[in-house]
Amino acid sequence: MSPKITTELLKQLRQVMKNPRYVQEPVQAYIVPSGDAHQSEYIAPCDCRRAFISGFDGSAGTAIVTEQHAAMWTDGRYFLQAAHQMDSNWTLMKMGLKDTPTQEDWLVSVLPEGSKVGVDPFIIPADQWKRMSKALRSAGHDLVPVKENLIDTIWTDCPQRPCKPLITLDLSYTGVSWRDKIVALRSKMAERKVMWFVVTALDEVAWLFNLRGSDVEYNPVFFAYAVIGMNTIRLFIDGDRMMDPAVREHLQLDSTLEPEFKIQVLPYGSILSELQAVGAGLSPKEKVWLSDKASYALTEAIPKAYRYLTPYTPICIAKAVKNAAETEGMRRAHIKDAVALCELFNWLEKEVPKGTVTEIVASDKAEEFRSQQKDFVELSFATISSTGPNGAIIHYKPVPETNRTLSVNEIYLLDSGAQYKDGTTDVTRTMHFGTPSAYEKECFTYVLKGHIAVSAAIFPNGTKGHLLDSFARSALWDCGLDYLHGTGHGVGSFLNVHEGPCGISYKTFADEPLEAGMIVSDEPGYYEDGSFGIRIENVVLVIPAETKYNFKNRGSLTFEPLTLVPIQTKMIDVNLLTEKERAWVNEYHGQCRAVVGAELERQGRHEALRWLLRETEPLAPAP
Amino acid sequence: MSPKITTELLKQLRQVMKNPRYVQEPVQAYIVPSGDAHQSEYIAPCDCRRAFISGFDGSAGTAIVTEQHAAMWTDGRYFLQAAHQMDSNWTLMKMGLKDTPTQEDWLVSVLPEGSKVGVDPFIIPADQWKRMSKALRSAGHDLVPVKENLIDTIWTDCPQRPCKPLITLDLSYTGVSWRDKIVALRSKMAERKVMWFVVTALDEVAWLFNLRGSDVEYNPVFFAYAVIGMNTIRLFIDGDRMMDPAVREHLQLDSTLEPEFKIQVLPYGSILSELQAVGAGLSPKEKVWLSDKASYALTEAIPKAYRYLTPYTPICIAKAVKNAAETEGMRRAHIKDAVALCELFNWLEKEVPKGTVTEIVASDKAEEFRSQQKDFVELSFATISSTGPNGAIIHYKPVPETNRTLSVNEIYLLDSGAQYKDGTTDVTRTMHFGTPSAYEKECFTYVLKGHIAVSAAIFPNGTKGHLLDSFARSALWDCGLDYLHGTGHGVGSFLNVHEGPCGISYKTFADEPLEAGMIVSDEPGYYEDGSFGIRIENVVLVIPAETKYNFKNRGSLTFEPLTLVPIQTKMIDVNLLTEKERAWVNEYHGQCRAVVGAELERQGRHEALRWLLRETEPLAPAP
Repeated sequence: MSPKITTELLKQLRQVMKNPRYVQEPVQAYIVPSGDAHQSEYIAPCDCRRAFISGFDGSAGTAIVTEQHAAMWTDGRYFLQAAHQMDSNWTLMKMGLKDTPTQEDWLVSVLPEGSKVGVDPFIIPADQWKRMSKALRSAGHDLVPVKENLIDTIWTDCPQRPCKPLITLDLSYTGVSWRDKIVALRSKMAERKVMWFVVTALDEVAWLFNLRGSDVEYNPVFFAYAVIGMNTIRLFIDGDRMMDPAVREHLQLDSTLEPEFKIQVLPYGSILSELQAVGAGLSPKEKVWLSDKASYALTEAIPKAYRYLTPYTPICIAKAVKNAAETEGMRRAHIKDAVALCELFNWLEKEVPKGTVTEIVASDKAEEFRSQQKDFVELSFATISSTGPNGAIIHYKPVPETNRTLSVNEIYLLDSGAQYKDGTTDVTRTMHFGTPSAYEKECFTYVLKGHIAVSAAIFPNGTKGHLLDSFARSALWDCGLDYLHGTGHGVGSFLNVHEGPCGISYKTFADEPLEAGMIVSDEPGYYEDGSFGIRIENVVLVIPAETKYNFKNRGSLTFEPLTLVPIQTKMIDVNLLTEKERAWVNEYHGQCRAVVGAELERQGRHEALRWLLRETEPLAPAP
Repeated sequence: MSPKITTELLKQLRQVMKNPRYVQEPVQAYIVPSGDAHQSEYIAPCDCRRAFISGFDGSAGTAIVTEQHAAMWTDGRYFLQAAHQMDSNWTLMKMGLKDTPTQEDWLVSVLPEGSKVGVDPFIIPADQWKRMSKALRSAGHDLVPVKENLIDTIWTDCPQRPCKPLITLDLSYTGVSWRDKIVALRSKMAERKVMWFVVTALDEVAWLFNLRGSDVEYNPVFFAYAVIGMNTIRLFIDGDRMMDPAVREHLQLDSTLEPEFKIQVLPYGSILSELQAVGAGLSPKEKVWLSDKASYALTEAIPKAYRYLTPYTPICIAKAVKNAAETEGMRRAHIKDAVALCELFNWLEKEVPKGTVTEIVASDKAEEFRSQQKDFVELSFATISSTGPNGAIIHYKPVPETNRTLSVNEIYLLDSGAQYKDGTTDVTRTMHFGTPSAYEKECFTYVLKGHIAVSAAIFPNGTKGHLLDSFARSALWDCGLDYLHGTGHGVGSFLNVHEGPCGISYKTFADEPLEAGMIVSDEPGYYEDGSFGIRIENVVLVIPAETKYNFKNRGSLTFEPLTLVPIQTKMIDVNLLTEKERAWVNEYHGQCRAVVGAELERQGRHEALRWLLRETEPLAPAP
């Protein structure tokens, strides 16, 4: 990796920062955040502005350019990568280290008195704007919205915003029609006494209308906004996508409908002016509901007194609780995904000893097997295919410069998943194709104990996921070990592989309580820098639990694994498992055998079936 | 309990709410919070203003009186009590129930347009003021500070503010001199670039100066404030307490000292004007550090730009980490406390079958045995002595109306503690003096498993206590049971039995990480309404743990029980314990036997020693 040369680009940016064509008054600093106008985690190439100006293309980072300086804030996952990708014009600000200033503090330390700091109001979330604006103001500076994105003005070969065809999902996939989702949303709005709801997150628009797209890699979403009134539906979307007869039929654009279900289609770019018109026409007590992470631009369109902001929208919460059709779809998707992985691991077992399988080859092979499955759409994230020391890099993605060959002497970690039309998968397995050391088995077994502790946990209705995080760590902690990431995230149903509002992490507190029907990942790990990485990840469904008693009639919950891929028994030190844990593994492998075995049989994949049968032999009792 | 008749009092209050002698403009509502000017949990009789105006004397509750209404907000612990103690003038607002309005929402719903809502600015914490003021303002009303407390104007027989003599603590108790504490505080101030620190919490003043008082029952504190500058020390305290030669000597008031250690003694009531003078004299960048829970009045004395507010003060954090002298003192106090409880339980075992021991008798007997121990000062909280169904009332305190006789047919729960000059204790034991049922034993054993899970937990340095809370519940959760309180609180060293900034609770997230030297309680429970209550509580010290590995050199922590009182083995269903749990009980009882046994021997308490020896027999292995 050689750094991107940014001297000329920075010069151009500093010119437009003073150019009255773009800024009312010159700005002394310009902030380039990571996100797009929808606060997406994964973004389209046209939104990779921070990567364009700096060269650093990790998933998280904020660039700030002043007359004299250019600085990049990113977290521990990316210190090395950012240092490699950026030239000497840039100062790397290592977030999480004690001496690293915050963006606000740094700005205050470098700016001349009474400076203006510019930012694209469509890209910065309202809550971030508020915090930064307050800090700057108290130091005598001003945060100002710059309407035209200054990076776009100098990005001459900026790719077009994607505008790919849409997929319509019928009731067999979604379980609930978009009309019924609108009805439910309006009832939540009525409960909170709000008249309007603004849908800004891409996966929320997709979920609400039972549509999917492919504008962003790995995430089946499309660029759009929606504004839902008590009697109106406005969908802001570009291109000729609304000309597709299937889409017109799905949205009933040409039918005679009750007016409150008539969808008005408007250009994507008109959201601001339309929202401003809504804002201007509000009578007292007519509130507008927005996510507190919506962009500053859209939030400002509604006068402050009329805003109703919440961290999680009613769509986010409804989307998290999967209905029977979605759950069944997720089950199907996970069975197909397991078939693909049985094929892969069987293939790897034969090929790895030959010394010809690199991380990239294995990753491609995984995609090949997945793509053979029905309703496969694409991968759900960039495959983490890592062997030996690369496995210790938690967000590793193999590239030619780092590509390592799998061998019988190293642990191999594969974290991968796919989008199928019926569901989204995300699974991690850690394998050894030779003979693991006692220490590797020991660490693997602690991670497995943590995985089981969460998966088998029984907890009261209303429990938040973060309260389960320590269960995943307890066995590691007992030996002085740990892992520096959360234990689980929400998973969409043929939607984003990471979604709110629930999860299992020591880092959050504002997660919503777990409910039957929610789907999260369970993925503890252990990483030994320079040596190996271990992670065991299943996607699990929250289900009601039967318990002996029922305190205050609250009811209890537990998890059911949707992922049904064998956990390599060769890596387990059975002596470290309790009787209960051993039974859990055997029961889980029995499930894999029964369910995935039947599908392998049906698909005539006999060799993979034999592999599965061998890998799911019950564990012998501890001596 | 008959309700307090408040018609006349409310009439008087409503008059002073309009009386220009007390209010600049009439206030349409007046808020009477629970606390005192120091946000103390336990308050002096003169500060029980909410109890005076309403009759409701529970530990938590806020009264609001308007022209037409009088309403009381309290939580689930007190619904019954408040309903009994208040007359029909009052509406009970049951906090935590879905349909109960917040104070702000209720005020907005009942007040005429443009109302003024009054509150004593010394009683309301700044963070609460901010929240309420904002909510009222957005609805067109105003929160206004009423300088003179309106309850005090009508409380003709209000008791005097206590002003009892002080106790000085020498280095053998405190380990660090007050001068060294000032030096450490000033170094924290320099780190944060603040010039002044305002000490508002009573236990923080007491800790800083190595003084104790008895102005508030159960809490060895005294009414005072302090303002620490980089070169000055001001102590605001009333009465002739500073005339005591021991105190003068301790504080070196008559010595020739370096000026930065010279304590200036000022009247308690002059804190506001002195602080205003400080505030007025600040030059740019001279910040003043206050707790964000300091009163609105004191916070406002410092212009906003000069305030540095934190949830936990440096004193609160330093105080939580006990030094060797304090730890040794706590150990001694707990041994003495265990002696008293061995005597008590031995006595109860003989007396209960006679049918003459009531909850109050048992409670008095516990105090009697404690008071025989060296350096006993007073109890550390109101003893919870409860048998049968009373045990299910988590914050029960026996009174003649509820006083129940202990019997061989019911579970007895005793949660009690004392202040000794060398330390503070807090211990709960649950006993059966007859034959417990299988179900009672089952529940007790789940609680014990939770207690052990926390006590024996090993966790990395830097872990916050709330991450351990679920360990205490896991065994209960497995059977569909739970308890509706946190698992542990910080404990002071001859100071408040509840102190921040650490604890073990699912409810908090802002607790500070646990560190070696911190002391918390470990007290899971189970409560069956109408039948019985179970709780097992030890005070435990955070200590370094030896582990097999040491991830990132972080080091690990665990707990050492300071409380050494037998856990009744009769109540344990050994079949439900793992081998490790059984070993923990036996090891713990071995400790009780060795340490407390020796002290019982030394004190010549042979009968209690025999009781201890019998109660600490090792558990038989499960069949």
